[in-house]
Amino acid sequence: MVISSAWLRGMRDGEQFWAEGTTDGHRLRFDLTCTQAVMNYRFHLETADGPRWLSAGGWLEFDPTDREDFRLLTTGGAPEWVPDLVWYQIFPDRFATTGHYRHDNHPTDTSWANWVEWDEPIADSFPANMEQMYGGDLDGITERLQHLVDLGIGGIYLTPVFPARSNHRYDAMTFDIVDPVLGGDKALARLSDAAEALGLRVMTDLTLNHTGSVHEWFVAAQADAASEEAGFYFFIEHPEHYESWMGIDSLPKLDHRSEELRRRYYGETVSVLGKYLQPPFNMAGWRIDVANMTGRLGPIDLNQDVAKASRATVDAVDAGQPDADDKWLVGEHFFDASLDAPGNGWHGVMNYAGLTRPIASWLGQFTALGAFMEGPGQASRDGVQMARSMDVVRAATPWQVTMGSMSLLSSHDTARWRTMCGSDETALVGFGLLLCMPGAPTFFYGDEVGLTGETSEKARRTMPWDTDQWDSSFLDWYRAIIKVRNEYVALRHGGFRWVHTEPDSVIFLRETPNQRMLVRTARAATGPTELSATLLRGTSLRAVINSAVINGADITATDGSFTIEGTGPIHQVWELS
Amino acid sequence: MVISSAWLRGMRDGEQFWAEGTTDGHRLRFDLTCTQAVMNYRFHLETADGPRWLSAGGWLEFDPTDREDFRLLTTGGAPEWVPDLVWYQIFPDRFATTGHYRHDNHPTDTSWANWVEWDEPIADSFPANMEQMYGGDLDGITERLQHLVDLGIGGIYLTPVFPARSNHRYDAMTFDIVDPVLGGDKALARLSDAAEALGLRVMTDLTLNHTGSVHEWFVAAQADAASEEAGFYFFIEHPEHYESWMGIDSLPKLDHRSEELRRRYYGETVSVLGKYLQPPFNMAGWRIDVANMTGRLGPIDLNQDVAKASRATVDAVDAGQPDADDKWLVGEHFFDASLDAPGNGWHGVMNYAGLTRPIASWLGQFTALGAFMEGPGQASRDGVQMARSMDVVRAATPWQVTMGSMSLLSSHDTARWRTMCGSDETALVGFGLLLCMPGAPTFFYGDEVGLTGETSEKARRTMPWDTDQWDSSFLDWYRAIIKVRNEYVALRHGGFRWVHTEPDSVIFLRETPNQRMLVRTARAATGPTELSATLLRGTSLRAVINSAVINGADITATDGSFTIEGTGPIHQVWELS
Repeated sequence: MVISSAWLRGMRDGEQFWAEGTTDGHRLRFDLTCTQAVMNYRFHLETADGPRWLSAGGWLEFDPTDREDFRLLTTGGAPEWVPDLVWYQIFPDRFATTGHYRHDNHPTDTSWANWVEWDEPIADSFPANMEQMYGGDLDGITERLQHLVDLGIGGIYLTPVFPARSNHRYDAMTFDIVDPVLGGDKALARLSDAAEALGLRVMTDLTLNHTGSVHEWFVAAQADAASEEAGFYFFIEHPEHYESWMGIDSLPKLDHRSEELRRRYYGETVSVLGKYLQPPFNMAGWRIDVANMTGRLGPIDLNQDVAKASRATVDAVDAGQPDADDKWLVGEHFFDASLDAPGNGWHGVMNYAGLTRPIASWLGQFTALGAFMEGPGQASRDGVQMARSMDVVRAATPWQVTMGSMSLLSSHDTARWRTMCGSDETALVGFGLLLCMPGAPTFFYGDEVGLTGETSEKARRTMPWDTDQWDSSFLDWYRAIIKVRNEYVALRHGGFRWVHTEPDSVIFLRETPNQRMLVRTARAATGPTELSATLLRGTSLRAVINSAVINGADITATDGSFTIEGTGPIHQVWELS
Repeated sequence: MVISSAWLRGMRDGEQFWAEGTTDGHRLRFDLTCTQAVMNYRFHLETADGPRWLSAGGWLEFDPTDREDFRLLTTGGAPEWVPDLVWYQIFPDRFATTGHYRHDNHPTDTSWANWVEWDEPIADSFPANMEQMYGGDLDGITERLQHLVDLGIGGIYLTPVFPARSNHRYDAMTFDIVDPVLGGDKALARLSDAAEALGLRVMTDLTLNHTGSVHEWFVAAQADAASEEAGFYFFIEHPEHYESWMGIDSLPKLDHRSEELRRRYYGETVSVLGKYLQPPFNMAGWRIDVANMTGRLGPIDLNQDVAKASRATVDAVDAGQPDADDKWLVGEHFFDASLDAPGNGWHGVMNYAGLTRPIASWLGQFTALGAFMEGPGQASRDGVQMARSMDVVRAATPWQVTMGSMSLLSSHDTARWRTMCGSDETALVGFGLLLCMPGAPTFFYGDEVGLTGETSEKARRTMPWDTDQWDSSFLDWYRAIIKVRNEYVALRHGGFRWVHTEPDSVIFLRETPNQRMLVRTARAATGPTELSATLLRGTSLRAVINSAVINGADITATDGSFTIEGTGPIHQVWELS
């Protein structure tokens, strides 16, 4: 394309400005000073075909809004190591147990617990399924770290570790100590140290939206309407009527208008949020539960204030630990997070909207995807529609936020990925697709050995350590594709662009200046695809891996184009040169 | 279209919810409780062609972000009367003069003023063109109100009326009194009363972004670094170095972090913002200057706080005057305002992004559109591209904000519309288009008699009152199309949808339940257009007006379709039945 003039159009203090591009014949260069924390910009190009805008929304022939502008976070995004790692999500009660803490002699109340054996089935109904305690603990995880190392995992994400009155622990009793049932503070420090010795990072999970009704703050609040803690919650009629998460009484909602709440929770490096990022715990970051609802109730909306204040504390911890790596702050968000995560609060989100839902809509075989994925909107889509859904989310999101987000197919809040897919072949290619997309790929413990589960509760079954129960077709592929991601930097840090989408297959590039990877994911066989060597900027494709029995062959451009065979279902990766 | 199921998908406190539609066979109905100030929603429909979303972005076959959701302002939008009126913008120094205040014996400093005669040309250079005082005054406007009544005008928007040291008065000396050069407080009250008696409303203009460097606050601030007023501004080095609008020393930028500034300016009904909305001034509202930059400087961004606080004061004034109509708060914004005007601050904006620029890109014949419209991005577009630019802005903006926005072709900050167009025919059809679009149509004094001007400064020429200098082709058409807008409620309050766009013509509907108007605007002749009677839901088109010499004929659907002839340039309006 011949470009006769190129301008960058940015916004500064709410006002438009222009910077003219200069070129050395190969690249365009724009010099400008960034004064905003989040700087948005797009390009205006005079081409032989007329004037065009180039934004994160693509090439545009009309004047767009600023919503799909490129966005640069001038104060930085998530730490560089975030997308470098493959993340392994552990539900602590269900991964591994030493058996040491499987009793009721704890300083915290465990009278509600129903201690069950490791192979007991998950109960069918609430609240029984929240009270079954399998006795998984942190030392159990520490003992099993080699399994993760063998898989190629770099980071562990633990759902909450605070004492609570349920097995999921999202209803914390206190944030002052790690649950003695998990081994307590010392067990978390042991896990952190052991993981670090193996080159693994560990992060955990915090509710800022609510506490448990058994939380010491809420107990004080209910006991005395004049207490400071009473201002932490929304009492409709003290002490019995109060706002709670989704109307569930055991999860009273927090009122972030309270200065004291903010101070204790995330206001300083000695706050809850600051404490666990530092020795002896050294957590690598926090996943913030229900980040999308946090600070919001009707006309009250402090969501961005909470996110920014939390980020300030994370930044302060980072600044106070010059020898430690920076920390990660990632918010749970099941929906479009582009307005909630502009980049100056949460580093990223759990990318359900931009990855999980689109991929599930393409590869999922039924609509019941587990509690938080259900709804009339969860329709089946083809590959073109999936790509468009991914594109609109990615275009609305700063690239640094996408890269600092968890990318996932499923979690403790959905059915198991294998069950969602119905077909093992599509489950495998879906995992391949995930590992080649931007973001920090994260999967639920046991997916790698083929666990199934039709609901989020059923998905939380215990990890089987009898390897006879493992499905090697999953384990082999998971290991293999994780190895490829770990080996090729372009799959972790490269840019992203589609080169071909059709109903049953998608083909895209991940590129750094020195490495270009071509990826094809097909849910079924298709016709052959011809790709221009000029478009791909290369002449040969070296097969790196594919998920089919037959290994992919190297391909050379003939008459200026590559012909990709229409095999499927398959996930294929080539290196371009 | 056969719809087998319909759901509304909304967000409440950051979480998705669903409401199922019920139908009486004709309409879909969704029952829900709105708890948010701004409620966003879209529809999910199962159709014979598969699942579809319907949002402000149109029909979608993929899962979108929430950015183009419909948005309902549950606390209300702009007053109903805002889009009911055609607005007339007056630059007070240039519209009409009694000659009574054209001297230097004022209590405020006018030593800077260069008093010139009414027919003196505008000076070519700065600062001479800011110091020429033609002596227009408020009593002059009062004397000329019948001209506005004859035109069909309903509202007058005055650029600033506070004492200043320039003819544009955006560099106020004080907000405590109306400029004595304009006749002072009493003249504004006289104008307000006289206008009210004729059924006209009057609003004026406030800078919240900056004051003049001659403002009493800034004088106090420079005199004493310890003064309260010193905290109103951004001193880099007191007293000589400070932040200012666009680096212009005479316009020091305000720091809204100062509580005292907020209190005095817009914090209570006795503040500057509150005072002029009440007796004896009774202004109908405020246009807020540079609303896009207000409260913003580098990492500091209090823009939304200022907008919300201003709105709260307007609402408080409304609540305190039960017999008076509600007031209007509209922000100047040259760019995409969808994030700055979500509906809970400014009622609307000057809709440069969604109307002025798109229309100018279609009808404007040269790219120099005046100071604030210039830039590489101001390219020529065809009708399809213009429509798309309008669509993306409208889709990103709550409908109530669009309806509460000023729609305009030009202002004191651009070249004159007639000059922008180059051709009188396209200037006339452009005005017709504006009058049929959603929003509150606003034009610059004198456009109706055919004034020209190549820059914003040259556009501010004095209104000629010698009717021999008036161009009757403009006056007749302006009067006629304003009359049509005033007569047909659908043009003021109806919904909007395109029915046909092509490079040289666009056709759209404005509809209320009881009235449907079809509008065609063409910049050149086209082929005939066939429109389905089913799509238009009618069988006959009664010609209401057109801008060509030959009156439009009534049209009846034949074989289920209307054939619209390809005349052009032309602006045509029909009533459908």
